[in-house]
Amino acid sequence: MQKENVLSTRRVYDGRIIHLRLDDVRTPGGIETLREIVEHPGAVAIVAVDGQNRVLLIRQYRHAAGRVMVEIPAGTLKPGEDPAVCAARELVEETGYTAAKLERIGGIHTSPSFCTEYIHLFLATDLTRGAALPEADEHIEVEPTPWAEVLRRMRAGEIEDAKSISALLLLFTSAGSVTT
Amino acid sequence: MQKENVLSTRRVYDGRIIHLRLDDVRTPGGIETLREIVEHPGAVAIVAVDGQNRVLLIRQYRHAAGRVMVEIPAGTLKPGEDPAVCAARELVEETGYTAAKLERIGGIHTSPSFCTEYIHLFLATDLTRGAALPEADEHIEVEPTPWAEVLRRMRAGEIEDAKSISALLLLFTSAGSVTT
Repeated sequence: MQKENVLSTRRVYDGRIIHLRLDDVRTPGGIETLREIVEHPGAVAIVAVDGQNRVLLIRQYRHAAGRVMVEIPAGTLKPGEDPAVCAARELVEETGYTAAKLERIGGIHTSPSFCTEYIHLFLATDLTRGAALPEADEHIEVEPTPWAEVLRRMRAGEIEDAKSISALLLLFTSAGSVTT
Repeated sequence: MQKENVLSTRRVYDGRIIHLRLDDVRTPGGIETLREIVEHPGAVAIVAVDGQNRVLLIRQYRHAAGRVMVEIPAGTLKPGEDPAVCAARELVEETGYTAAKLERIGGIHTSPSFCTEYIHLFLATDLTRGAALPEADEHIEVEPTPWAEVLRRMRAGEIEDAKSISALLLLFTSAGSVTT
């Protein structure tokens, strides 16, 4: 399957986290069209499971969504940062927990039609509880939640975050990795 | 949990599908900070299951991701369009199949930290095959895929699309709805 050829690029916005560029492309079928591309540095998201087999969910107000959302801990990659290092850092910042064991369980493109964002997904176990260190503009409540309740919340539409659903269910459906 | 108050808004870009605005906000903790918000009209994604219990996966080049991706059929809402109408339209456009039965199975925010996009997720069944009607700039290959192979591809990292993983696994883990 052929790729699209970029005919010209215009940079529209270079921001704090995201950037916007407009690519005029020619498709393999010979059609010229515009692709609006949001550039994002990438991110990590973490399914952290404590010694009582509870998942650390977090609750925070999300301005873009216009409402409070329940998600798993996550954060944006710093330039050149190793995703596993970022996952360890974000977990302690957002929840106060440190993980002795961190393993990659997959990855997702969040919106491949217009955004470059790719999120690396991790499982964190062997947790030790400490104090959270949120960014100044973050207000996060941590909710250790039993797996059965996590599944109930997803099915009830109380968790509607793509990275959280993807990571939790990829892990849940992996053979033998989760018991409720 | 309190929301953030918008102090001022600047519109940066109004485009074909996405728009970009910059909001200066005050957090509940009294911090003033910038939120870069990508506005998106919302979308639908469809798990379409044929009479042989195969899922219609599609394969296409995604310029933002820079590679060919395997996903479920999906598309952007037109202004004021009912999501179920959009789902029926996008399914036939991208795959050629029409569905006699369409039911909502959930919804996801793809990137709630910076993007307003919300995707309505549907299950389509009682399918009838016809000719696909792709947009001029779309090049899509349709792959009816048995459930066991869909799960294998997700676990192997061959499907890395957030809406596809979320919709497929929300459906798969719903009691009694899927047999492989």
